[in-house]
Amino acid sequence: MDLALFFTHLAACGAAAATGAMFQPGEWYRSLDKPRWTPPDWLFPVAWAVLYLAMSAAAARVGGFEGERPGTGLALSLWSVQIALNTLWTPVFFGLRRMGAGLVVLGLLWLAVAATAGAFWQIDRIAGLMMLPYLAWVTVAGALNHAVWWRNAAARA
Amino acid sequence: MDLALFFTHLAACGAAAATGAMFQPGEWYRSLDKPRWTPPDWLFPVAWAVLYLAMSAAAARVGGFEGERPGTGLALSLWSVQIALNTLWTPVFFGLRRMGAGLVVLGLLWLAVAATAGAFWQIDRIAGLMMLPYLAWVTVAGALNHAVWWRNAAARA
Repeated sequence: MDLALFFTHLAACGAAAATGAMFQPGEWYRSLDKPRWTPPDWLFPVAWAVLYLAMSAAAARVGGFEGERPGTGLALSLWSVQIALNTLWTPVFFGLRRMGAGLVVLGLLWLAVAATAGAFWQIDRIAGLMMLPYLAWVTVAGALNHAVWWRNAAARA
Repeated sequence: MDLALFFTHLAACGAAAATGAMFQPGEWYRSLDKPRWTPPDWLFPVAWAVLYLAMSAAAARVGGFEGERPGTGLALSLWSVQIALNTLWTPVFFGLRRMGAGLVVLGLLWLAVAATAGAFWQIDRIAGLMMLPYLAWVTVAGALNHAVWWRNAAARA
């Protein structure tokens, strides 16, 4: 794995991760009516740490095939779409508390992650598989965002 | 220019641009003490539209040299760092109104854009040059962020 590629992508993840530190759930999130299957609070930062490492490693693997297999540039450009949307979600949901808009962002993020995983799979099977936990987590996050939005009608925006 | 690469990068810019629509300057920004050289409000969305188009076209040019010239993957990964930081700045400054933290994000953004421009220049002179208006604008934005932070000590965070 190309370490320069790994750490550059991890730096991009750092911007996304910073939103989690700066836009905290706080009292507002605690007071929301949430479904019983809501993951415990401690799991979110742990899951994101693992996913950021995995998506950076996957991108580094794909970038390592530059010149050998076609489409690495397009695959990495899809990766940049997902990291920008990932950075966007937290401020929209926890900052603006716009749960409907947050759901739209998560829907677009899901599509971007699926497209990235597909493009990675074409170049490197392992890199494609490394994106699947991320896709699964965004699926759960989308279901949770939807459930919270639905259960707290008064707080909808 | 590879249109798929252009539009994928433009989609990433869309996430960054959405922060401008959702985190509006509003009354708080209008009430701040700003330097005389502050650009007029109408210029910001116009400048960003031009810059997003230029940075997407530059990335598409660079990605088009995949397999011909080395380093396209690393150059595009630097591009992903800058778009994530670009997406981060608006919620931090206009959402949280944390002007000091905003300045830190802009400083990191400046470094990421400079690194991207340098990496692009190594692969394609035109793409490198196309990043320079962006670097200039981030320099102005950084100076403005610093001036506003300095002049409004009471509102500092």
